[in-house]
Amino acid sequence: MPTACLPDDRHGADLGPLPGDVQLIAWDADGAPPAEFARTDFWVPPYGAPPPPADVLRTAASLRVVQLLSAGVEPWLGQVPPGVTLCSGRGIHGGSTAELAIAGLLSAWRELPRFQAAQREHRWAAPSGGRSLDGARVLVLGAGDIGRRVGAVLRLLDAEVTSVARRPRQDVRTLDELPDLLPQQDAVVVAVPLTPQTHHLVDAAFLAALPDGAVLVNVARGGIVDTDALLAEARSGRLRAFLDVTDPEPLPAEHELWQLPNVQITPHVGGGTLGWERRAYRLAGEQLRRFLTGAPLQNVVEAGY
Amino acid sequence: MPTACLPDDRHGADLGPLPGDVQLIAWDADGAPPAEFARTDFWVPPYGAPPPPADVLRTAASLRVVQLLSAGVEPWLGQVPPGVTLCSGRGIHGGSTAELAIAGLLSAWRELPRFQAAQREHRWAAPSGGRSLDGARVLVLGAGDIGRRVGAVLRLLDAEVTSVARRPRQDVRTLDELPDLLPQQDAVVVAVPLTPQTHHLVDAAFLAALPDGAVLVNVARGGIVDTDALLAEARSGRLRAFLDVTDPEPLPAEHELWQLPNVQITPHVGGGTLGWERRAYRLAGEQLRRFLTGAPLQNVVEAGY
Repeated sequence: MPTACLPDDRHGADLGPLPGDVQLIAWDADGAPPAEFARTDFWVPPYGAPPPPADVLRTAASLRVVQLLSAGVEPWLGQVPPGVTLCSGRGIHGGSTAELAIAGLLSAWRELPRFQAAQREHRWAAPSGGRSLDGARVLVLGAGDIGRRVGAVLRLLDAEVTSVARRPRQDVRTLDELPDLLPQQDAVVVAVPLTPQTHHLVDAAFLAALPDGAVLVNVARGGIVDTDALLAEARSGRLRAFLDVTDPEPLPAEHELWQLPNVQITPHVGGGTLGWERRAYRLAGEQLRRFLTGAPLQNVVEAGY
Repeated sequence: MPTACLPDDRHGADLGPLPGDVQLIAWDADGAPPAEFARTDFWVPPYGAPPPPADVLRTAASLRVVQLLSAGVEPWLGQVPPGVTLCSGRGIHGGSTAELAIAGLLSAWRELPRFQAAQREHRWAAPSGGRSLDGARVLVLGAGDIGRRVGAVLRLLDAEVTSVARRPRQDVRTLDELPDLLPQQDAVVVAVPLTPQTHHLVDAAFLAALPDGAVLVNVARGGIVDTDALLAEARSGRLRAFLDVTDPEPLPAEHELWQLPNVQITPHVGGGTLGWERRAYRLAGEQLRRFLTGAPLQNVVEAGY
């Protein structure tokens, strides 16, 4: 009988109907795996868990698929044994994270922090005649699930969206075009995974190329942005930022980023909304059905078979 | 030669190309009109100006069209002479106002004020596992330009949107269905004009029908909401609100609404963004071209000819 291993025994029903008999086991990836892990074909590690030591993975002699529940896969790259397919949780968190990116960009764009400061003083603030997104130029860095969702909403709000990603695709510009594109942007939304290629992609030169008053939104990973470079541009008042992720994270109480009036910080809440587990196990169930029926898997990061 | 009267002499070029010769004159609607007002066929009063006294309007013997630059037309209803068509500025402010409604709903939904309070204390707040709009039920009151735009964005964010308006239309529910609809909503966005029918439409019974924790967003007019009824529901912590318009407006410094942590207030900045004049005169120019060529006018509120 095929065996699937989940992080706990609470979500079997959330997988939906499975074809034929499947043994469901549970392992929280902490300590030693249960004996049945040796027979596991399809493994769903807990959200955010790092890969177990290689000798533990080698005990799973039947393993064919590792299905992650996160969109980010960095710690797992190159860690699953040959013959094992690694799949990401792309799509599980995308809506929630894209929504926070939109919330953050609009909050900065429409000056909500300024009006909230006025509210604390019981003061009907003078409108500044700010801009709407109509005609604003927004560069969306990343063309995965989050980036595509952000772009679609911004286009509906009549922004001029430029999509940039690592791989060339239709209607997507590439990273080497950034020096030409950045001076023309009113805002940048960062939605690429953290990889060696994207580490400090948003550095001093990237930020210096943006026009005065531009807004940087990061809902991806803190390490994509050079924090010191951003601090310099935000401290001078030249750029604004909305950061759901920081480097270091959590941000220490003494960090200067907390104090800048043109920087908004949320504590990495992009993807952590209620309902993500429902979406997560719906995806895991769909992938398990595909595996059991021999259909192609979605979200393949490393193809093992 | 046909004559068009604009609020000032700075925006003639923004009208775009006009067919044949047109005399453009300017009047700021303050004091006595210029002599050429008597020959004016097409009048664009200044944004927000009330109708002039009837004897002034009667001097404009050639007047055929009054083109307002606001979406709201209440003060002008029944005020233009027989034979004169009154047109609204519907569409000029819609994108900007819809955008603020989305900003306000997302700010409340994703708890941005709570995280900003934590930021003031340099504190990485514990995430609350809040909800994304995925699957949230949002009632949009009003199916005009603003309501339609809000609904389209919310649907793209996977919310379940119910549209309600005064007139029955396809996929739009009517006001008499509100008692059945309200108990099922997680949020309500108010985007109807203020009329005798919508004054205090959001009253104590309306608010009581909403489930605990629901969010009310008002970007229309303060008088649509019964402020005392909203105060009672917000003071108890049962409902949350984002208000860009209030009654009274501006809100006096001593008003209790300022103090409630679950109420966000912005100072009527929905439509007042840069770029609105460009959009306004683009619309006025299009309407003037239609008038000059005998094509049907858009946004007709009272048909006079």
